[in-house]
Amino acid sequence: MVPVLDVPEPLSPPEPAEILLETPELESPEVPEVPLPEAADLPEPHPEPAPVSEPVPVPEPVLVPAPRLEPDPEPAAQDGDDASSRRIKGLKFHPPLRDDRALADRVNERLMEWAEKEIELYPGDELRAMFLAFDPGRSVVMCHPDAASFEHLVAAGMLYIGENAVDDYFCEPDLGGSPEGLGARLLVAQTAIDPLHTAKEQVPKWLAGIASHPALRSMRSAMNYFERIATPAQAHRYRHDICNLYLGYCAEAACIQTGRTPSVWEYLAHRQFNNFRPCLTITDAVGGYELPASMFARPDVQRATGLASNASTIVNDLFSLRKEMAQERVHHSLPTVIADEEDCGIEEAFQKTIDIHNELMDDFESLSALLAPTDPVLARYLAGLSNWVAGNHEWHSGLVGTRYATSP
Amino acid sequence: MVPVLDVPEPLSPPEPAEILLETPELESPEVPEVPLPEAADLPEPHPEPAPVSEPVPVPEPVLVPAPRLEPDPEPAAQDGDDASSRRIKGLKFHPPLRDDRALADRVNERLMEWAEKEIELYPGDELRAMFLAFDPGRSVVMCHPDAASFEHLVAAGMLYIGENAVDDYFCEPDLGGSPEGLGARLLVAQTAIDPLHTAKEQVPKWLAGIASHPALRSMRSAMNYFERIATPAQAHRYRHDICNLYLGYCAEAACIQTGRTPSVWEYLAHRQFNNFRPCLTITDAVGGYELPASMFARPDVQRATGLASNASTIVNDLFSLRKEMAQERVHHSLPTVIADEEDCGIEEAFQKTIDIHNELMDDFESLSALLAPTDPVLARYLAGLSNWVAGNHEWHSGLVGTRYATSP
Repeated sequence: MVPVLDVPEPLSPPEPAEILLETPELESPEVPEVPLPEAADLPEPHPEPAPVSEPVPVPEPVLVPAPRLEPDPEPAAQDGDDASSRRIKGLKFHPPLRDDRALADRVNERLMEWAEKEIELYPGDELRAMFLAFDPGRSVVMCHPDAASFEHLVAAGMLYIGENAVDDYFCEPDLGGSPEGLGARLLVAQTAIDPLHTAKEQVPKWLAGIASHPALRSMRSAMNYFERIATPAQAHRYRHDICNLYLGYCAEAACIQTGRTPSVWEYLAHRQFNNFRPCLTITDAVGGYELPASMFARPDVQRATGLASNASTIVNDLFSLRKEMAQERVHHSLPTVIADEEDCGIEEAFQKTIDIHNELMDDFESLSALLAPTDPVLARYLAGLSNWVAGNHEWHSGLVGTRYATSP
Repeated sequence: MVPVLDVPEPLSPPEPAEILLETPELESPEVPEVPLPEAADLPEPHPEPAPVSEPVPVPEPVLVPAPRLEPDPEPAAQDGDDASSRRIKGLKFHPPLRDDRALADRVNERLMEWAEKEIELYPGDELRAMFLAFDPGRSVVMCHPDAASFEHLVAAGMLYIGENAVDDYFCEPDLGGSPEGLGARLLVAQTAIDPLHTAKEQVPKWLAGIASHPALRSMRSAMNYFERIATPAQAHRYRHDICNLYLGYCAEAACIQTGRTPSVWEYLAHRQFNNFRPCLTITDAVGGYELPASMFARPDVQRATGLASNASTIVNDLFSLRKEMAQERVHHSLPTVIADEEDCGIEEAFQKTIDIHNELMDDFESLSALLAPTDPVLARYLAGLSNWVAGNHEWHSGLVGTRYATSP
């Protein structure tokens, strides 16, 4: 057996996972054991009815047409439960275009089947508990209201689960992750979606390495499914955005290892990489259309993408703050680095974080309003970003009281 | 003054560097001091006459037309000096299509002017010594024989210098680099080519951070020049390949920090990222044409790109081995990890490394031969990869006896 990764030892030996290969000349290697640690600590969903909004012209049929570029910071609480208690006061947001519990359940069922039978992600009971708590189906249903089909939603959900598995196993301490040696683990994780091109003798060993770990199997299998719905350019875009994410993880780990609190601008730079961006930039692939790579790469489209991604990521910093501050280990966030740099209280820093978020939301919506009329495909992509931001806010809001909180 | 990076303190205060911004609404911030350490330890050039080769049809005028897809492992020694003593026995290579000393000198002169006046890379005498030794002009002249103009060659040289500056200052110990905290430095370096999209108040601080360090100034300025010759999609491709490079640096640093020797397959994975790839994939931009992003992203084109990049990077492991083994600090390379995993001598591992390199060269050339007839632009791109591999080999070979060696 070849040595594989410096990850925790497995607890029990599962069956070999079936890995779909895009490198044709290879045989399936023998598969080492996999770690079977505890499932991630994740909360209950809060289903809500979907508000309605103005449609815009889109180039292809969609389940729910898209964007609302007017700010809507204080929508009427249409939620069945006490919606206002789940909002962060003053935080701009839009309600999601749809929130379909039955569809979310179907997506979860399919994802659980995949996780159990194809990638052996977590052991049975813990897997089920994770899905009930994490509810990836609800996330992708809310974030991708214009998904082209059920299978498109499932593909988005698989990537989401894979990304979380990498974070859970390699970065976070609960499942054995650590800043120590992180870069080496993340690089191998990148080869699960960006294949190794090397000597024939080494390829089965690499594949055995990928097959040996649930996080790596998840990413490789999810990428295989994604490539069925994505063009090569969309798949390559995803590789880039995941590489950005991993560089962000390395930056965060570096600050933890050296005990250095980054300045506010540097933290914002780190967080532009350690970011939800890979979830947002698949919006066209999940929608069944393609924003051409030449248009995606334009500086103004990159800026719109960056603003939407950064705003949605700061939402996470706000809703997570109480949970992170309760942890023993250091966990930098925008409120904590602002409090450190400006020598202010955490409440004041929390408010300044809200202000930064709202500024980015305004900038995104202003830029989108300029760009959308210039091209219908670009308009749909920008609406897709906006839909993702809205769904993400609702997903966080729905977990207030279990995972998240609306104040420090 | 805002806190910037955790990099060594500067020795003397230069004038503010002029940074070309693509973020329009910003004012130039005040510029902190820059470190002025010793120049990199780099060797003398060995100019040689250019061999000739068969041209192929190309879609645009080129200085020297391109590719040779037939293997040419043992070309006649056309070099003026004792070429055979500068070759690694059994290592497949092609001679470069051109090696123009006068043109290389002109490129060096322009690059030195840029480094002195625009980015203040190294202090005067050391800068000049670095250029004489490193000879970036010869590298880009040999590696890009079909460059569209002098300015295209210069842009390639600027990126090359910027990449080396990041490695020199952030990774290598001579100029203060270290595995400690590396991920955070590299992420900020990435924002020099992939701009931050954040709150207005923070942008001048970020720009001051970039302007405060010679490696960051180099990358930002080089990217600005590159964007003049590249399409947005080509610029975005470069961002992706540099992000890959930095993830590779993080993986290498992780192994050094944890004292772990990677297995051969894992080292090959690391080295597919810590790789010359960003130099190769600009070949079309430097050639004044564009391989469309949709074609670049195709799995077969990605594989050809990966094979060529990996072969050229293993050349570096071979020529560098003696130098690296003489260093006190641990420096993994393909020969050393093979020797470790297979428990064999370094001479045998060196030979196995040559075999792997040759296999990758053969695979690249076989795949290129299949792909090139399908599309003239793709044919030119593949020829460009081949040209880069040839120029890179000659650049290494030319430094045997100073920087490099042909045996362990």
